[in-house]
Amino acid sequence: MKIKKLIAKVLLLGVGFIPSQLLAQTSLPLHENLISFNSSQGETLLIESNARQDYIPLSLQFETQENLAFCGVASIVMVLNALSIPAPKATEWVMYHRFTQDNVFDNPKTEAVITKETVSRQGMTLQELGGLLKSYPVDVEVYHGDEVSLEEFRQEIINNLKQANDFVLVNYLRSAIGQERGGHISPIAAYNKESDRFLILDVSRYKYPPVWVKAEDLWKGTNTIDSVSQKTRGFILVTSQ
Amino acid sequence: MKIKKLIAKVLLLGVGFIPSQLLAQTSLPLHENLISFNSSQGETLLIESNARQDYIPLSLQFETQENLAFCGVASIVMVLNALSIPAPKATEWVMYHRFTQDNVFDNPKTEAVITKETVSRQGMTLQELGGLLKSYPVDVEVYHGDEVSLEEFRQEIINNLKQANDFVLVNYLRSAIGQERGGHISPIAAYNKESDRFLILDVSRYKYPPVWVKAEDLWKGTNTIDSVSQKTRGFILVTSQ
Ligand SMILES: [Ca+2]
Ligand SMILES: [Ca+2]
Ligand SMILES: [Ca+2]
Ligand SMILES: [Ca+2]
Repeated sequence: MKIKKLIAKVLLLGVGFIPSQLLAQTSLPLHENLISFNSSQGETLLIESNARQDYIPLSLQFETQENLAFCGVASIVMVLNALSIPAPKATEWVMYHRFTQDNVFDNPKTEAVITKETVSRQGMTLQELGGLLKSYPVDVEVYHGDEVSLEEFRQEIINNLKQANDFVLVNYLRSAIGQERGGHISPIAAYNKESDRFLILDVSRYKYPPVWVKAEDLWKGTNTIDSVSQKTRGFILVTSQ
Repeated sequence: MKIKKLIAKVLLLGVGFIPSQLLAQTSLPLHENLISFNSSQGETLLIESNARQDYIPLSLQFETQENLAFCGVASIVMVLNALSIPAPKATEWVMYHRFTQDNVFDNPKTEAVITKETVSRQGMTLQELGGLLKSYPVDVEVYHGDEVSLEEFRQEIINNLKQANDFVLVNYLRSAIGQERGGHISPIAAYNKESDRFLILDVSRYKYPPVWVKAEDLWKGTNTIDSVSQKTRGFILVTSQ
């Protein structure tokens, strides 16, 4: 019987079909300082938020970063689609124009900032994130973590989250907010005043759900040094022109 | 000057880089019988819904069908991920397990239902949608449009939308609800009683936003003949085992 199973397995391998083992979907456990958006408490924080103008437009464009280095690329694509910026053709949809994590690089101006290959290897810095966004018709304001106080950080982002047609991307060190582990980029969708927390729509959906994070923890996460740029991380405000 | 531009253009072509023209992102215009979810009215309908248990889990897994024929595939992936069903490895994310529109076919049981190649050519019927779902550990109830009254249609779906850990996929004729044009599949995320409308999280995000559609229009859209199966379309309830 065991031998029959072995033969069956060999035959299966022989025809080139190796079924991938089905394993539990992550996500990694959440630190006690974070609140999952996918919980009744997480939902309540959104309902009671008075700075959630960006939530629906961003959630409609939510997508997963296509590889471990593409958090910035997925974040750019979500924001450009949410702003309905004129887009390249996407061959997979024939006649429809829309940004993808592939065609967003089909623009001569992006090459001058950073190539797709370099991003695939090392991700991108805050400056490169701003530079890629500027290769499309949007206004971009870049703030490094060491340039703003907690109060300025909170207020700039809240102002944006209260109005339509602009969005916030944040670049932070995950370990500063209790996550695994390095630098990361995602859009911010809402702010809850009572708990003083921001909602991050984390684009690494294979790894973590969106979380509500304390404003102070996120601010500290932006005031960390990116070893590639030797500058602090930070956040970017993106506005339709 | 014109010649210089022409030469520059030829050189650009010469090095093999043809920038795609940036064009307005769709979406197609919405019929007056539909309400876009991405509007203040659409948001209000969700806030006032008392059958929206499935909205957040589905919205967190929202993704775009990867080609014009993959509406059913994207819908299956959203639901399997929302239910956290054990998943194959996704090579792009190295060690993380999660369903994608590619790896959902990496299962010997799916081949017996329909191949990826056939789906790419002609999409899938309601029966095939149910069959693909059954190749994973979920309970599946298939309802054809001609088997249920409007009242039964409405009530079965509302019951599901009021509880967690199960989801609804609907297979309808777009033209019956005022859209372009053939058969389509997407998850339903919520119901609003006062307006008697369902919220469809349309997976063809390059084409239409999510819409609130009248229950009667959607029911009529399911009571239409799929030319491949020669049976009516319908809806499917998917439950975690
Ligand atoms: Ca400002
Ligand atoms: Ca905003
Ligand atoms: Ca039932
Ligand atoms: Ca449900």
